[in-house]
Amino acid sequence: MTKQAAYVAVDWGTSSFRLWLIGTEGDVLAERRSGEGMLTAAKTGFEAILQSHLDAVAAPAGLPFIVCGMAGARQGWVEAGYLDTPALLADIVKAAVRVPGIARDVRILPGLAQRNPSAADVLRGEETQLLGAGDILMAGDHLVCMPGTHSKWVRVSNGTATGFSTFMTGELFDAISKHTILSHTVGDGGSFDGTYPAFVDAVAQVRDNPALTSNRLFSVRAGQLLHALPATDGKARLSGTLIGLEISGALSTVPAGGGICLVASGPLGALYQAALAAFDLTPVLIDADDAVRHGLASAARAIWPL
Amino acid sequence: MTKQAAYVAVDWGTSSFRLWLIGTEGDVLAERRSGEGMLTAAKTGFEAILQSHLDAVAAPAGLPFIVCGMAGARQGWVEAGYLDTPALLADIVKAAVRVPGIARDVRILPGLAQRNPSAADVLRGEETQLLGAGDILMAGDHLVCMPGTHSKWVRVSNGTATGFSTFMTGELFDAISKHTILSHTVGDGGSFDGTYPAFVDAVAQVRDNPALTSNRLFSVRAGQLLHALPATDGKARLSGTLIGLEISGALSTVPAGGGICLVASGPLGALYQAALAAFDLTPVLIDADDAVRHGLASAARAIWPL
Repeated sequence: MTKQAAYVAVDWGTSSFRLWLIGTEGDVLAERRSGEGMLTAAKTGFEAILQSHLDAVAAPAGLPFIVCGMAGARQGWVEAGYLDTPALLADIVKAAVRVPGIARDVRILPGLAQRNPSAADVLRGEETQLLGAGDILMAGDHLVCMPGTHSKWVRVSNGTATGFSTFMTGELFDAISKHTILSHTVGDGGSFDGTYPAFVDAVAQVRDNPALTSNRLFSVRAGQLLHALPATDGKARLSGTLIGLEISGALSTVPAGGGICLVASGPLGALYQAALAAFDLTPVLIDADDAVRHGLASAARAIWPL
Repeated sequence: MTKQAAYVAVDWGTSSFRLWLIGTEGDVLAERRSGEGMLTAAKTGFEAILQSHLDAVAAPAGLPFIVCGMAGARQGWVEAGYLDTPALLADIVKAAVRVPGIARDVRILPGLAQRNPSAADVLRGEETQLLGAGDILMAGDHLVCMPGTHSKWVRVSNGTATGFSTFMTGELFDAISKHTILSHTVGDGGSFDGTYPAFVDAVAQVRDNPALTSNRLFSVRAGQLLHALPATDGKARLSGTLIGLEISGALSTVPAGGGICLVASGPLGALYQAALAAFDLTPVLIDADDAVRHGLASAARAIWPL
């Protein structure tokens, strides 16, 4: 497709796949997105999926690959292990693992692990977003919120990830809205944003008393039975309750008053921005897609200097 | 089967069915239990299920029936509505609904509703357990814990249910252990009791910081990845976290220092007793099976005086 291609960057999640063909000037020459995440690839083959996307963008042969995410999990392509906290972000690339037994040069970046038994935690993929978040994390203390299926809140001090906490927010939303009595209430709910009153109210209620969370969830159902609340209200309330619980919990582990960064994209980012505002917090916004690509680029430059 | 039968008492839950043939002296002449709850009965027919159990115990024809639980829900047999809080327990029987259009005399007891829009809540079945809990609830202030799929905490003052809160504890345990990443961790877990260290520790952790609940849930998974925690530990931790969150929430809505009653049976009752002990609470124990039967008996005596 082009003579300027330098390497291929891949963000390989549990259920999503993104690939960028990057030029010698660091420019994006082509982008591919699909649902062929780790779960699919573990069945159909990681290299076959890569090849199909390379063919689709007519990439030249012989390019090296830099990969982050679940491809490096134990149940992924090749295990890339974990870097233990406290971890210098710049050290992530040193722990990259090369996929053995194939002609391509494929390097998979490791995750981060917090081995403290009373706060055991792991992340994989987000370390690359931190690496690509820009100079802001290299100096001073930051609390970085990275929302998603498993939201990560990372404490970064002068370029070192000192600790982090995972919250199952996205996955709880899914499990509760599909597999509990709330499925009758939120199943037909439409879309809403951070200004939706039921969302704002739910965030405020759980902020004021997080212990009542599982009661607040049931009140979504009871509110529909007794007051005919619309399904979109129920869905917004479930979302606001779980996001509010996450923020309450994350803030409970750090001293008040530090700076907050929000690494997110699209509607989810806007929802978290609104929820953080209910806690009087105005985050620095970092686009999640840009961050992971910049992180992969930073790793590529370190492994294959031009 | 006997000439002394006076009436039939039925506790008809969402997924469980219990029937007792009661004699003229209030004695239990026969008992039947099955999984033909409201969900099954809505398909196969409520009267047909009753008849099959009557045949099985050779009950005389013409007996009247007193029923509580989900048979009275909108999606049940005949809607028996709700009594609004504050509700005098003795008034429950006055709102019983007779099933129309059939020869049998079947009365279904109503549920309770709390219509306050900011704390909308409903219960159905537990009102009959309160009615049957005995004289203890007739004087003084009580906080009554009724654990289950949807745990209910009812505030009772001098025989009046003044308010209540539902916690989705049992259903959350099910949805999280089957439909999230924790399924890999807790799926093979064995049984445990209230003295199991992971259960006790999880209750204490959520008691000390309920806001961290969704992080504590993920740490069950991370603990297995990093420290090879056994599946039973994961299951006990998930249970302790959710029960601890429920107790924290329930206690947050009432003044400290009141008396607590625990209406439960079997292993679940013992688990709640242990969790309550972590909050320095020693409940009065009331057997849940006895309570519902006594409540149905009390209603039967009021409707059909001997």
